[in-house]
Amino acid sequence: MSHPVPKGFRLAGVHCGIKSDATKEDLTLIATDQECVAAGVYTQNLVVAPSVTQNRAKTPCENIRVLVVNSGNANACTGERGEQDCREMSRLAGEAVGASEAQSLVMSTGIIGHFLPMEKVATGITGAAALLGSDDTAFASAVRGITTTDKFLKTSSRSIDIGGQPVQITAMAKGAGMIGPNMATMLCAVMTDAALTSGDAQQILTHAVDRSFNCISVEGHTSTSDMVLLLASGAAGVGPSSDSDRATLQQAIDDVCVEVARMIPSDGEGATHLVTIDVTGCSSRDDARRIAKTVAESALVRTAITGNDPNWGRIVSAAGYASVEFDPSKVTLRINDALIYEAGMPAVYDEKQVSESMRDSHEVRLSLAFGEGDESVRFWGSDLTVDYVKFNSEYST
Amino acid sequence: MSHPVPKGFRLAGVHCGIKSDATKEDLTLIATDQECVAAGVYTQNLVVAPSVTQNRAKTPCENIRVLVVNSGNANACTGERGEQDCREMSRLAGEAVGASEAQSLVMSTGIIGHFLPMEKVATGITGAAALLGSDDTAFASAVRGITTTDKFLKTSSRSIDIGGQPVQITAMAKGAGMIGPNMATMLCAVMTDAALTSGDAQQILTHAVDRSFNCISVEGHTSTSDMVLLLASGAAGVGPSSDSDRATLQQAIDDVCVEVARMIPSDGEGATHLVTIDVTGCSSRDDARRIAKTVAESALVRTAITGNDPNWGRIVSAAGYASVEFDPSKVTLRINDALIYEAGMPAVYDEKQVSESMRDSHEVRLSLAFGEGDESVRFWGSDLTVDYVKFNSEYST
Repeated sequence: MSHPVPKGFRLAGVHCGIKSDATKEDLTLIATDQECVAAGVYTQNLVVAPSVTQNRAKTPCENIRVLVVNSGNANACTGERGEQDCREMSRLAGEAVGASEAQSLVMSTGIIGHFLPMEKVATGITGAAALLGSDDTAFASAVRGITTTDKFLKTSSRSIDIGGQPVQITAMAKGAGMIGPNMATMLCAVMTDAALTSGDAQQILTHAVDRSFNCISVEGHTSTSDMVLLLASGAAGVGPSSDSDRATLQQAIDDVCVEVARMIPSDGEGATHLVTIDVTGCSSRDDARRIAKTVAESALVRTAITGNDPNWGRIVSAAGYASVEFDPSKVTLRINDALIYEAGMPAVYDEKQVSESMRDSHEVRLSLAFGEGDESVRFWGSDLTVDYVKFNSEYST
Repeated sequence: MSHPVPKGFRLAGVHCGIKSDATKEDLTLIATDQECVAAGVYTQNLVVAPSVTQNRAKTPCENIRVLVVNSGNANACTGERGEQDCREMSRLAGEAVGASEAQSLVMSTGIIGHFLPMEKVATGITGAAALLGSDDTAFASAVRGITTTDKFLKTSSRSIDIGGQPVQITAMAKGAGMIGPNMATMLCAVMTDAALTSGDAQQILTHAVDRSFNCISVEGHTSTSDMVLLLASGAAGVGPSSDSDRATLQQAIDDVCVEVARMIPSDGEGATHLVTIDVTGCSSRDDARRIAKTVAESALVRTAITGNDPNWGRIVSAAGYASVEFDPSKVTLRINDALIYEAGMPAVYDEKQVSESMRDSHEVRLSLAFGEGDESVRFWGSDLTVDYVKFNSEYST
């Protein structure tokens, strides 16, 4: 999970006492040596944390110096004091790197409805600022500092060449774990040393998120605090100056986003399968996504996959209530490589063989083809297990 | 569960071999002595069974003589042969009561993707026709004949007075149980001896369904075969002739529909709680329903209720992603009678006491109030338990 830190970034994660376990980092700083370009994509939930409203007001921009992230307390649903605490956290992080509150972005994840322990946050910011670095140790501590119930760390990187110069892209994310009255907060920070305008950064990030974080679902619950930020330091000394460069960079950022995004349902609580859903042949990408999301979130589909059952009925009928018009007699369904359903009826297939192919792989592929057009989407979800229900009903608050 | 059979109806349920268990009725006839008025409301799933398409083409109408229902095989996703089998089933039921295929309606529930065993169906229709009656035994056998995995029978009735004459309304329903590749089929037949035009019948039924069956959700999965039929024999010799009569009849039909509809999530697979969700203060009834449905279907809300946890964070944030605009600072949440959340922040409440009130009752009430308008909805769902997941992942096909 070690990845190169792009030029111009230094980072660190420390434990400052927000999490009760003293071995767990709960505060991360990502600082840039110079002002950097920042773009953001935020939760569409109406109930949002101050970190979301305040970052949303700042990005896209070209003068960011630091991102501060705390885990263990999301500072959401905390009223005016929560807003003030978020601004203060931002100011402290800016101060720690010689910058202003306006040059500082904030991410928070964890329990909601509780005030941030601001003294601990202040200590954590000072401590992290003293440890900022760009080696593997610094990177790893920073990644751990943004996690909550993640079972594994979610990182990805690409090294590309733009105009003969090396450009690095490295992303870290945390997944949809929820404890107590906590939410399924999803956070991701993508760092690159490419030189970008804030407009380009926003456009590239929006494109990447549309193909990655907006194509995953664990249980359909969007959080008060979800966000993805792209920070571009420009320290590589080169940016995309041609359509070809731009395409190369876009692809690399899409790739890292997809790579970390699909780790989130893969690490879904209690999940035993990552479910990759390809929906093709739709008249719009929105239609395709709506169908994929409905299938991915169906409790009946998800429990069938837990049981390694190629249950075409649940899948096809989930597509049928996605509020997308299609001709049912033109639907084709494949599970892994087997043709299961065709022309409005189940196909002839070896149920035992298909079931074994589901059982023997962590990833199950559902391919739904429609006869309505040329648009498609790839979407990722997880199965629904007894452990998920136990974890989410038997926690103690 | 015994209820008076409205005048003009005779019914019976028999075992004809569609279900493997010979003690279980799997075919029901509901016949009328004279032509009756019929109205229907059908699944909104795009993938529909022939019973849905064929009934949809017949109703509303004023010449129905029989409704035939089989359980154990939904005859859905069975192509052209399935269409033919459904027509033949309809013809056989008509013939058994001296009527035509056009005067016969069909409901089917059970496994999908399998052809109906038509010989057994024919035998069942003949057998049931010979047993038609209107006593408690006949009624009970007919109710059992429409069920699949229901743990209890779902019936309701009202006796009202219209123009000095007694009018009877009696409903039977089956709930959202799913086995094998079967769907969550919901069926309901409402019988009344009131005299109605087909237009009135359709209007009354649509109104009642909007407040009952369209306000329940077990896991959001609509089936290929869901339908609610209203049959009005006119044998009471009286119909609504004033606005007041009409209101009395509407209320009675709303009431029986609500009464059987809420039994469906109450009998949700593995459910330990019926969740009643009141959403008030919205600018439209649609907005209120969208919020209620999103909360009812949230896996995080449902598992929290399983654990008797008054988890306001999950509830409020589910409302936040319902695609309805509202001011989060004006939201109030009560669980049972306790104020839990107010003005964008958690209220001060006795968590232990609220949790105990949830634990000690089968029904849990969530009341979400918004500050956007005067529209409201009452919605019913169920909690999500380990047993639900076991049942839906560990079945054998």
